[in-house]
Amino acid sequence: MFLAQQPMDAGHPPAGPLFSICTLVTRHAEYAAMVESFDARGFTPDKAEFLYLDNAKGHQWDAFQGIKRFLSLARGTYVILCHQDIRLLADDIETLCVRLAALDALHTDWALAGNAGAMADGSLVIRISDPHGEDQRRGNLPAEVVSLDENFIIIRRDALVSISAGLSGFHLYGTDLCLQARCAGRSAWVIDFHLRHLSAGKVDASFHQAQQRLEAHYDKVLSPPWNVRTTCTKLILGGGGLRHWLARRRLARRLK
Amino acid sequence: MFLAQQPMDAGHPPAGPLFSICTLVTRHAEYAAMVESFDARGFTPDKAEFLYLDNAKGHQWDAFQGIKRFLSLARGTYVILCHQDIRLLADDIETLCVRLAALDALHTDWALAGNAGAMADGSLVIRISDPHGEDQRRGNLPAEVVSLDENFIIIRRDALVSISAGLSGFHLYGTDLCLQARCAGRSAWVIDFHLRHLSAGKVDASFHQAQQRLEAHYDKVLSPPWNVRTTCTKLILGGGGLRHWLARRRLARRLK
Repeated sequence: MFLAQQPMDAGHPPAGPLFSICTLVTRHAEYAAMVESFDARGFTPDKAEFLYLDNAKGHQWDAFQGIKRFLSLARGTYVILCHQDIRLLADDIETLCVRLAALDALHTDWALAGNAGAMADGSLVIRISDPHGEDQRRGNLPAEVVSLDENFIIIRRDALVSISAGLSGFHLYGTDLCLQARCAGRSAWVIDFHLRHLSAGKVDASFHQAQQRLEAHYDKVLSPPWNVRTTCTKLILGGGGLRHWLARRRLARRLK
Repeated sequence: MFLAQQPMDAGHPPAGPLFSICTLVTRHAEYAAMVESFDARGFTPDKAEFLYLDNAKGHQWDAFQGIKRFLSLARGTYVILCHQDIRLLADDIETLCVRLAALDALHTDWALAGNAGAMADGSLVIRISDPHGEDQRRGNLPAEVVSLDENFIIIRRDALVSISAGLSGFHLYGTDLCLQARCAGRSAWVIDFHLRHLSAGKVDASFHQAQQRLEAHYDKVLSPPWNVRTTCTKLILGGGGLRHWLARRRLARRLK
Protein backbone atom coordinates (compact mmCIF):
# COMPACT_ATOMS: atom_id res chain seq x y z
CA MET A 1 0.00 0.00 0.00
CA PHE A 2 2.82 2.41 0.93
CA LEU A 3 6.25 2.38 -0.64
CA ALA A 4 8.50 4.14 1.86
CA GLN A 5 6.25 4.19 4.91
CA GLN A 6 5.23 1.01 6.72
CA PRO A 7 2.58 2.02 9.24
CA MET A 8 2.45 -0.30 12.25
CA ASP A 9 -0.83 -1.85 13.34
CA ALA A 10 -0.85 -0.86 17.02
CA GLY A 11 -3.54 -3.46 17.63
CA HIS A 12 -0.86 -6.14 17.17
CA PRO A 13 2.19 -4.65 18.85
CA PRO A 14 5.57 -6.35 19.20
CA ALA A 15 5.91 -8.20 22.49
CA GLY A 16 7.82 -6.39 25.22
CA PRO A 17 9.13 -7.66 28.57
CA LEU A 18 6.70 -8.08 31.45
CA PHE A 19 8.69 -5.85 33.81
CA SER A 20 10.99 -2.85 33.41
CA ILE A 21 12.98 -2.44 36.62
CA CYS A 22 14.29 1.11 36.96
CA THR A 23 16.84 2.37 39.47
CA LEU A 24 18.92 5.47 40.18
CA VAL A 25 22.39 4.13 40.95
CA THR A 26 25.00 5.72 43.20
CA ARG A 27 26.86 2.51 44.19
CA HIS A 28 27.25 -0.01 41.36
CA ALA A 29 28.19 -2.96 43.59
CA GLU A 30 25.01 -2.47 45.63
CA TYR A 31 22.96 -2.20 42.43
CA ALA A 32 24.53 -5.43 41.11
CA ALA A 33 23.41 -7.23 44.28
CA MET A 34 19.88 -5.85 43.78
CA VAL A 35 19.77 -7.06 40.16
CA GLU A 36 21.05 -10.48 41.21
CA SER A 37 18.36 -10.81 43.88
CA PHE A 38 15.71 -10.05 41.23
CA ASP A 39 17.27 -12.46 38.74
CA ALA A 40 17.33 -15.23 41.36
CA ARG A 41 13.56 -14.74 41.92
CA GLY A 42 12.53 -15.18 38.30
CA PHE A 43 13.11 -11.70 36.86
CA THR A 44 15.18 -13.26 34.07
CA PRO A 45 16.06 -11.57 30.75
CA ASP A 46 13.04 -13.09 28.99
CA LYS A 47 10.68 -11.45 31.51
CA ALA A 48 12.46 -8.34 32.73
CA GLU A 49 14.63 -5.50 31.46
CA PHE A 50 16.75 -3.46 33.87
CA LEU A 51 17.22 0.28 33.31
CA TYR A 52 19.45 2.50 35.42
CA LEU A 53 20.62 6.09 35.57
CA ASP A 54 24.17 6.63 36.76
CA ASN A 55 24.47 8.99 39.69
CA ALA A 56 27.77 7.52 40.91
CA LYS A 57 29.64 10.69 39.96
CA GLY A 58 27.26 13.14 41.61
CA HIS A 59 23.50 13.52 41.40
CA GLN A 60 23.03 14.19 37.73
CA TRP A 61 19.50 12.74 37.79
CA ASP A 62 17.00 13.65 40.46
CA ALA A 63 14.04 11.32 40.98
CA PHE A 64 11.49 13.37 39.01
CA GLN A 65 13.77 13.74 35.98
CA GLY A 66 14.77 10.09 36.26
CA ILE A 67 11.17 8.85 36.30
CA LYS A 68 10.39 10.85 33.16
CA ARG A 69 13.36 9.25 31.41
CA PHE A 70 12.59 5.74 32.70
CA LEU A 71 8.91 5.89 31.71
CA SER A 72 9.81 7.21 28.25
CA LEU A 73 12.22 4.32 27.62
CA ALA A 74 10.59 1.39 29.43
CA ARG A 75 8.97 -1.31 27.31
CA GLY A 76 7.54 -3.47 30.09
CA THR A 77 3.87 -3.99 30.84
CA TYR A 78 4.78 -2.94 34.39
CA VAL A 79 7.48 -0.49 35.40
CA ILE A 80 9.11 -0.98 38.80
CA LEU A 81 10.79 2.06 40.32
CA CYS A 82 13.00 0.86 43.18
CA HIS A 83 15.96 1.78 45.33
CA GLN A 84 19.32 0.09 44.78
CA ASP A 85 19.29 -1.12 48.40
CA ILE A 86 16.27 -3.43 48.21
CA ARG A 87 16.66 -7.20 48.07
CA LEU A 88 14.01 -9.73 47.13
CA LEU A 89 13.27 -12.46 49.71
CA ALA A 90 11.05 -15.54 49.24
CA ASP A 91 8.38 -13.69 47.19
CA ASP A 92 9.21 -14.04 43.50
CA ILE A 93 7.94 -12.95 40.08
CA GLU A 94 5.06 -15.45 40.33
CA THR A 95 3.96 -13.99 43.67
CA LEU A 96 4.06 -10.50 42.21
CA CYS A 97 2.06 -11.49 39.12
CA VAL A 98 -0.63 -13.07 41.32
CA ARG A 99 -0.84 -9.91 43.48
CA LEU A 100 -1.13 -7.64 40.43
CA ALA A 101 -3.76 -9.84 38.80
CA ALA A 102 -5.79 -9.53 42.01
CA LEU A 103 -5.77 -5.74 41.62
CA ASP A 104 -7.26 -6.06 38.12
CA ALA A 105 -10.28 -7.67 39.76
CA LEU A 106 -10.54 -5.03 42.51
CA HIS A 107 -10.31 -1.92 40.31
CA THR A 108 -10.00 -2.02 36.50
CA ASP A 109 -8.34 1.38 36.57
CA TRP A 110 -5.65 0.78 39.20
CA ALA A 111 -2.36 2.44 38.28
CA LEU A 112 0.15 2.04 41.12
CA ALA A 113 1.21 -0.54 43.69
CA GLY A 114 3.84 -0.62 46.42
CA ASN A 115 4.76 -2.01 49.81
CA ALA A 116 4.07 0.96 52.12
CA GLY A 117 1.68 3.88 52.17
CA ALA A 118 -1.32 5.43 53.88
CA MET A 119 -5.04 5.00 53.37
CA ALA A 120 -7.55 7.83 52.89
CA ASP A 121 -8.45 7.63 56.62
CA GLY A 122 -4.80 8.23 57.55
CA SER A 123 -3.94 4.71 58.69
CA LEU A 124 -0.59 3.32 57.56
CA VAL A 125 -0.30 0.11 55.55
CA ILE A 126 3.09 -1.62 55.45
CA ARG A 127 4.58 -4.92 54.25
CA ILE A 128 8.37 -4.92 54.47
CA SER A 129 11.50 -5.89 56.33
CA ASP A 130 13.70 -2.87 57.04
CA PRO A 131 15.75 -1.35 59.91
CA HIS A 132 12.44 -0.54 61.68
CA GLY A 133 11.60 -4.26 61.96
CA GLU A 134 11.61 -7.72 60.40
CA ASP A 135 8.59 -9.08 58.51
CA GLN A 136 6.35 -6.06 59.18
CA ARG A 137 2.69 -6.45 58.22
CA ARG A 138 0.28 -3.64 58.98
CA GLY A 139 -3.22 -3.30 57.53
CA ASN A 140 -5.36 -5.66 55.45
CA LEU A 141 -3.72 -6.27 52.09
CA PRO A 142 -4.27 -5.33 49.37
CA ALA A 143 -5.29 -1.88 50.63
CA GLU A 144 -6.13 1.18 48.53
CA VAL A 145 -3.86 4.07 49.51
CA VAL A 146 -3.43 7.80 48.84
CA SER A 147 0.37 7.74 49.05
CA LEU A 148 3.20 5.27 48.44
CA ASP A 149 6.67 5.00 49.93
CA GLU A 150 9.41 5.29 47.31
CA ASN A 151 11.51 2.17 48.01
CA PHE A 152 9.41 0.03 45.64
CA ILE A 153 6.68 1.32 43.31
CA ILE A 154 5.02 -0.57 40.46
CA ILE A 155 3.41 1.41 37.64
CA ARG A 156 1.03 -0.08 35.11
CA ARG A 157 2.53 1.47 32.01
CA ASP A 158 -0.69 1.54 29.97
CA ALA A 159 -2.27 3.66 32.70
CA LEU A 160 -0.11 6.62 31.54
CA VAL A 161 0.60 7.88 35.04
CA SER A 162 2.04 11.37 35.02
CA ILE A 163 4.39 13.17 37.41
CA SER A 164 4.25 16.87 38.15
CA ALA A 165 6.48 19.30 36.28
CA GLY A 166 8.26 21.87 38.42
CA LEU A 167 9.01 19.46 41.27
CA SER A 168 12.47 18.03 41.81
CA GLY A 169 14.69 16.22 44.29
CA PHE A 170 14.40 12.81 45.90
CA HIS A 171 11.35 13.14 48.16
CA LEU A 172 7.59 12.71 47.80
CA TYR A 173 7.62 11.52 44.19
CA GLY A 174 5.64 8.45 45.29
CA THR A 175 3.00 10.76 46.73
CA ASP A 176 3.04 12.89 43.59
CA LEU A 177 2.52 9.80 41.39
CA CYS A 178 -0.48 8.84 43.58
CA LEU A 179 -1.93 12.36 43.36
CA GLN A 180 -1.49 12.42 39.58
CA ALA A 181 -3.16 9.01 39.32
CA ARG A 182 -6.07 10.37 41.40
CA CYS A 183 -6.42 13.35 39.01
CA ALA A 184 -6.84 10.78 36.21
CA GLY A 185 -9.41 8.72 38.15
CA ARG A 186 -6.98 5.93 38.99
CA SER A 187 -6.04 4.17 42.22
CA ALA A 188 -2.93 3.11 44.15
CA TRP A 189 -2.51 0.06 46.37
CA VAL A 190 -0.24 -1.55 48.93
CA ILE A 191 0.11 -5.25 48.15
CA ASP A 192 1.52 -8.25 49.98
CA PHE A 193 4.91 -8.50 48.30
CA HIS A 194 7.58 -8.94 50.94
CA LEU A 195 11.10 -7.65 50.33
CA ARG A 196 13.95 -6.22 52.36
CA HIS A 197 14.90 -2.55 52.32
CA LEU A 198 18.39 -2.07 53.74
CA SER A 199 17.87 1.51 54.89
CA ALA A 200 15.17 3.48 56.71
CA GLY A 201 13.81 6.67 55.19
CA LYS A 202 14.99 10.01 56.48
CA VAL A 203 13.22 13.34 56.85
CA ASP A 204 15.59 16.30 56.59
CA ALA A 205 15.50 19.96 55.57
CA SER A 206 15.27 19.02 51.89
CA PHE A 207 12.15 16.99 52.74
CA HIS A 208 10.34 20.03 54.15
CA GLN A 209 11.26 22.09 51.09
CA ALA A 210 9.94 19.32 48.85
CA GLN A 211 6.71 19.23 50.88
CA GLN A 212 6.24 22.99 50.52
CA ARG A 213 6.73 22.84 46.75
CA LEU A 214 4.29 19.93 46.45
CA GLU A 215 1.71 21.79 48.55
CA ALA A 216 2.11 24.96 46.49
CA HIS A 217 1.65 22.98 43.26
CA TYR A 218 -1.54 21.22 44.37
CA ASP A 219 -2.97 24.33 46.04
CA LYS A 220 -2.79 25.88 42.56
CA VAL A 221 -4.30 22.82 40.85
CA LEU A 222 -7.08 22.32 43.40
CA SER A 223 -8.63 25.77 43.03
CA PRO A 224 -11.98 25.28 41.32
CA PRO A 225 -13.96 26.17 39.44
CA TRP A 226 -12.00 25.71 36.24
CA ASN A 227 -13.84 27.56 33.46
CA VAL A 228 -12.80 25.94 30.21
CA ARG A 229 -14.03 26.84 26.76
CA THR A 230 -13.45 24.47 23.85
CA THR A 231 -14.10 24.97 20.14
CA CYS A 232 -17.47 23.22 20.68
CA THR A 233 -18.67 23.97 24.23
CA LYS A 234 -18.05 25.54 27.63
CA LEU A 235 -17.23 23.68 30.84
CA ILE A 236 -17.42 24.69 34.50
CA LEU A 237 -15.43 22.10 36.42
CA GLY A 238 -15.47 21.69 40.20
CA GLY A 239 -16.47 24.17 42.84
CA GLY A 240 -19.82 22.56 43.61
CA GLY A 241 -22.70 24.34 45.34
CA LEU A 242 -25.82 26.09 44.10
CA ARG A 243 -23.97 28.81 42.19
CA HIS A 244 -22.09 26.19 40.22
CA TRP A 245 -25.27 24.25 39.50
CA LEU A 246 -27.08 27.38 38.29
CA ALA A 247 -24.18 28.47 36.07
CA ARG A 248 -24.01 25.06 34.44
CA ARG A 249 -27.78 25.04 33.91
CA ARG A 250 -27.66 28.49 32.25
CA LEU A 251 -24.84 27.25 30.04
CA ALA A 252 -26.70 24.10 29.02
CA ARG A 253 -29.74 26.19 28.01
CA ARG A 254 -27.63 28.60 25.97
CA LEU A 255 -26.02 25.72 24.09
CA LYS A 256 -29.34 24.10 23.17
CA MET B 1 29.45 -7.23 35.80
CA PHE B 2 26.28 -9.28 35.24
CA LEU B 3 26.16 -12.56 33.41
CA ALA B 4 22.54 -12.97 32.33
CA GLN B 5 21.25 -9.44 32.90
CA GLN B 6 22.52 -6.51 30.85
CA PRO B 7 21.11 -3.40 32.50
CA MET B 8 20.66 -0.49 30.08
CA ASP B 9 22.12 2.92 30.88
CA ALA B 10 19.03 5.09 30.42
CA GLY B 11 21.30 8.13 30.26
CA HIS B 12 22.41 6.96 26.80
CA PRO B 13 19.23 5.58 25.24
CA PRO B 14 18.91 4.18 21.73
CA ALA B 15 17.80 6.81 19.22
CA GLY B 16 14.10 6.79 18.33
CA PRO B 17 12.24 8.62 15.56
CA LEU B 18 11.48 12.30 16.00
CA PHE B 19 7.76 11.86 15.43
CA SER B 20 5.23 9.08 16.05
CA ILE B 21 2.12 9.82 14.00
CA CYS B 22 -0.91 8.01 15.42
CA THR B 23 -4.31 7.61 13.80
CA LEU B 24 -7.55 5.70 14.28
CA VAL B 25 -8.41 4.39 10.82
CA THR B 26 -11.89 3.68 9.45
CA ARG B 27 -11.07 4.19 5.74
CA HIS B 28 -7.70 2.87 4.65
CA ALA B 29 -7.56 4.73 1.32
CA GLU B 30 -8.11 8.03 3.14
CA TYR B 31 -5.44 7.11 5.68
CA ALA B 32 -3.00 6.27 2.88
CA ALA B 33 -3.53 9.75 1.41
CA MET B 34 -2.84 11.26 4.85
CA VAL B 35 0.39 9.28 5.24
CA GLU B 36 1.49 10.30 1.73
CA SER B 37 0.88 13.96 2.47
CA PHE B 38 3.10 13.66 5.58
CA ASP B 39 5.78 11.75 3.69
CA ALA B 40 5.84 14.41 0.96
CA ARG B 41 6.48 17.08 3.60
CA GLY B 42 9.53 15.47 5.16
CA PHE B 43 7.99 12.94 7.57
CA THR B 44 10.15 10.23 6.00
CA PRO B 45 10.93 6.84 7.61
CA ASP B 46 14.18 8.14 9.18
CA LYS B 47 12.25 10.84 11.03
CA ALA B 48 8.76 9.49 11.58
CA GLU B 49 6.97 6.26 12.45
CA PHE B 50 3.27 5.82 11.67
CA LEU B 51 1.02 3.89 14.06
CA TYR B 52 -2.62 3.12 13.42
CA LEU B 53 -5.50 1.26 15.02
CA ASP B 54 -7.89 -0.44 12.64
CA ASN B 55 -11.52 0.57 13.13
CA ALA B 56 -12.53 -0.30 9.56
CA LYS B 57 -14.62 -3.22 10.77
CA GLY B 58 -16.51 -1.34 13.48
CA HIS B 59 -15.29 0.85 16.28
CA GLN B 60 -13.10 -1.56 18.22
CA TRP B 61 -10.93 1.28 19.57
CA ASP B 62 -12.43 4.43 21.00
CA ALA B 63 -10.19 7.49 21.23
CA PHE B 64 -9.34 7.16 24.93
CA GLN B 65 -8.35 3.48 24.62
CA GLY B 66 -6.50 4.24 21.40
CA ILE B 67 -4.45 7.04 22.94
CA LYS B 68 -3.38 4.75 25.79
CA ARG B 69 -2.21 2.15 23.28
CA PHE B 70 -0.50 4.70 21.03
CA LEU B 71 1.36 6.40 23.87
CA SER B 72 2.47 3.02 25.26
CA LEU B 73 3.94 1.98 21.90
CA ALA B 74 5.22 5.25 20.44
CA ARG B 75 9.01 5.77 20.35
CA GLY B 76 9.07 9.31 18.97
CA THR B 77 10.21 12.40 20.83
CA TYR B 78 6.84 13.85 19.83
CA VAL B 79 3.59 11.95 19.37
CA ILE B 80 1.09 13.36 16.88
CA LEU B 81 -2.53 12.26 17.33
CA CYS B 82 -4.42 13.14 14.18
CA HIS B 83 -7.50 12.36 12.13
CA GLN B 84 -7.22 10.35 8.92
CA ASP B 85 -8.82 13.23 6.99
CA ILE B 86 -6.10 15.84 7.50
CA ARG B 87 -3.66 16.73 4.73
CA LEU B 88 -0.44 18.67 5.08
CA LEU B 89 -0.09 21.80 2.91
CA ALA B 90 3.02 23.96 2.45
CA ASP B 91 4.12 23.71 6.12
CA ASP B 92 6.52 20.78 6.50
CA ILE B 93 8.51 18.94 9.14
CA GLU B 94 11.02 21.82 9.32
CA THR B 95 8.22 24.32 9.98
CA LEU B 96 6.87 22.11 12.74
CA CYS B 97 10.29 21.67 14.39
CA VAL B 98 10.82 25.44 14.39
CA ARG B 99 7.38 26.01 15.99
CA LEU B 100 7.99 23.37 18.68
CA ALA B 101 11.48 24.72 19.47
CA ALA B 102 9.85 28.13 20.00
CA LEU B 103 7.60 26.59 22.67
CA ASP B 104 10.66 25.31 24.56
CA ALA B 105 11.73 28.93 24.96
CA LEU B 106 8.23 30.10 26.04
CA HIS B 107 7.56 27.42 28.69
CA THR B 108 10.06 24.69 29.61
CA ASP B 109 7.18 22.51 30.78
CA TRP B 110 4.89 22.72 27.76
CA ALA B 111 3.23 19.39 26.99
CA LEU B 112 0.73 19.79 24.15
CA ALA B 113 0.33 21.70 20.90
CA GLY B 114 -2.34 21.84 18.25
CA ASN B 115 -4.02 23.99 15.62
CA ALA B 116 -7.27 25.03 17.36
CA GLY B 117 -8.37 25.65 20.94
CA ALA B 118 -9.46 28.28 23.44
CA MET B 119 -7.52 30.51 25.79
CA ALA B 120 -8.19 30.90 29.52
CA ASP B 121 -10.21 34.08 28.82
CA GLY B 122 -12.51 32.12 26.50
CA SER B 123 -11.27 33.49 23.17
CA LEU B 124 -10.78 30.99 20.36
CA VAL B 125 -7.43 30.51 18.61
CA ILE B 126 -7.44 28.78 15.23
CA ARG B 127 -4.98 28.11 12.38
CA ILE B 128 -6.48 25.75 9.79
CA SER B 129 -8.19 25.28 6.45
CA ASP B 130 -11.42 23.33 6.83
CA PRO B 131 -15.05 23.41 5.59
CA HIS B 132 -15.59 26.51 7.78
CA GLY B 133 -13.04 28.47 5.73
CA GLU B 134 -9.72 28.57 3.87
CA ASP B 135 -6.50 29.71 5.55
CA GLN B 136 -8.13 30.64 8.87
CA ARG B 137 -5.94 32.52 11.34
CA ARG B 138 -7.44 33.69 14.61
CA GLY B 139 -5.47 34.88 17.64
CA ASN B 140 -1.78 35.69 18.12
CA LEU B 141 0.25 32.52 17.67
CA PRO B 142 1.65 30.73 19.53
CA ALA B 143 -1.09 31.10 22.15
CA GLU B 144 -1.42 29.22 25.44
CA VAL B 145 -4.77 27.43 25.57
CA VAL B 146 -6.93 25.46 28.02
CA SER B 147 -8.37 23.11 25.38
CA LEU B 148 -7.34 21.67 22.02
CA ASP B 149 -9.38 20.49 19.06
CA GLU B 150 -8.81 16.84 18.22
CA ASN B 151 -7.97 16.96 14.51
CA PHE B 152 -4.24 17.46 15.21
CA ILE B 153 -2.57 17.25 18.63
CA ILE B 154 1.17 17.02 19.35
CA ILE B 155 2.30 15.53 22.66
CA ARG B 156 5.81 15.86 24.02
CA ARG B 157 6.33 12.26 25.05
CA ASP B 158 8.77 12.95 27.89
CA ALA B 159 6.12 15.14 29.52
CA LEU B 160 4.19 11.97 30.44
CA VAL B 161 0.77 13.45 29.72
CA SER B 162 -2.02 11.33 31.13
CA ILE B 163 -5.62 10.78 30.04
CA SER B 164 -8.50 10.16 32.40
CA ALA B 165 -9.64 6.63 33.15
CA GLY B 166 -13.37 6.06 33.03
CA LEU B 167 -13.95 8.30 30.01
CA SER B 168 -14.60 6.86 26.56
CA GLY B 169 -15.84 7.69 23.09
CA PHE B 170 -14.59 10.09 20.45
CA HIS B 171 -15.21 13.51 22.00
CA LEU B 172 -13.36 15.88 24.32
CA TYR B 173 -10.19 13.83 24.63
CA GLY B 174 -8.21 16.89 23.53
CA THR B 175 -9.74 18.83 26.40
CA ASP B 176 -9.07 15.96 28.80
CA LEU B 177 -5.39 15.85 27.74
CA CYS B 178 -5.15 19.61 28.39
CA LEU B 179 -6.81 19.24 31.81
CA GLN B 180 -4.50 16.37 32.77
CA ALA B 181 -1.49 18.43 31.64
CA ARG B 182 -2.75 21.28 33.84
CA CYS B 183 -2.97 18.92 36.84
CA ALA B 184 0.72 18.16 36.27
CA GLY B 185 1.70 21.85 35.97
CA ARG B 186 2.11 21.73 32.21
CA SER B 187 0.79 23.90 29.37
CA ALA B 188 -0.90 23.51 25.97
CA TRP B 189 -0.51 25.76 22.93
CA VAL B 190 -1.96 26.53 19.54
CA ILE B 191 0.86 27.00 17.05
CA ASP B 192 1.13 28.32 13.50
CA PHE B 193 1.19 25.04 11.59
CA HIS B 194 -1.21 25.22 8.70
CA LEU B 195 -2.91 22.07 7.41
CA ARG B 196 -6.21 21.09 5.86
CA HIS B 197 -8.93 19.23 7.72
CA LEU B 198 -11.43 17.74 5.27
CA SER B 199 -14.37 17.67 7.68
CA ALA B 200 -15.90 20.01 10.24
CA GLY B 201 -16.49 18.84 13.79
CA LYS B 202 -19.96 17.80 14.85
CA VAL B 203 -21.78 18.12 18.17
CA ASP B 204 -24.38 15.40 18.68
CA ALA B 205 -26.08 13.54 21.53
CA SER B 206 -22.93 11.53 22.21
CA PHE B 207 -21.07 14.82 22.64
CA HIS B 208 -23.36 15.95 25.44
CA GLN B 209 -23.01 12.60 27.21
CA ALA B 210 -19.22 12.87 26.91
CA GLN B 211 -19.38 16.37 28.37
CA GLN B 212 -21.43 15.20 31.34
CA ARG B 213 -19.00 12.38 32.10
CA LEU B 214 -16.03 14.74 31.84
CA GLU B 215 -17.74 17.24 34.15
CA ALA B 216 -18.58 14.53 36.69
CA HIS B 217 -14.98 13.30 36.67
CA TYR B 218 -13.43 16.74 37.23
CA ASP B 219 -16.09 17.78 39.76
CA LYS B 220 -14.85 14.81 41.79
CA VAL B 221 -11.17 15.63 41.27
CA LEU B 222 -11.56 19.35 41.98
CA SER B 223 -13.03 18.97 45.45
CA PRO B 224 -10.39 20.18 47.89
CA PRO B 225 -9.03 19.93 50.42
CA TRP B 226 -7.28 16.62 49.80
CA ASN B 227 -5.99 15.33 53.15
CA VAL B 228 -3.13 12.99 52.38
CA ARG B 229 -0.98 11.18 54.89
CA THR B 230 2.30 9.60 53.80
CA THR B 231 4.68 7.35 55.75
CA CYS B 232 6.66 10.52 56.66
CA THR B 233 4.24 13.45 56.83
CA LYS B 234 0.71 14.82 56.42
CA LEU B 235 -0.48 17.07 53.61
CA ILE B 236 -3.51 19.33 53.27
CA LEU B 237 -3.81 20.20 49.58
CA GLY B 238 -6.03 22.91 48.14
CA GLY B 239 -9.07 24.53 49.66
CA GLY B 240 -7.35 27.79 50.56
CA GLY B 241 -8.65 30.28 53.11
CA LEU B 242 -7.93 30.89 56.78
CA ARG B 243 -9.08 27.47 57.98
CA HIS B 244 -6.69 25.76 55.58
CA TRP B 245 -3.82 28.03 56.63
CA LEU B 246 -4.45 27.36 60.33
CA ALA B 247 -4.70 23.59 59.84
CA ARG B 248 -1.43 23.51 57.91
CA ARG B 249 0.25 25.64 60.62
CA ARG B 250 -0.96 23.30 63.38
CA LEU B 251 0.35 20.35 61.37
CA ALA B 252 3.76 21.95 60.79
CA ARG B 253 4.11 22.53 64.56
CA ARG B 254 3.15 18.97 65.42
CA LEU B 255 5.73 17.60 62.97
CA LYS B 256 8.61 19.68 64.40
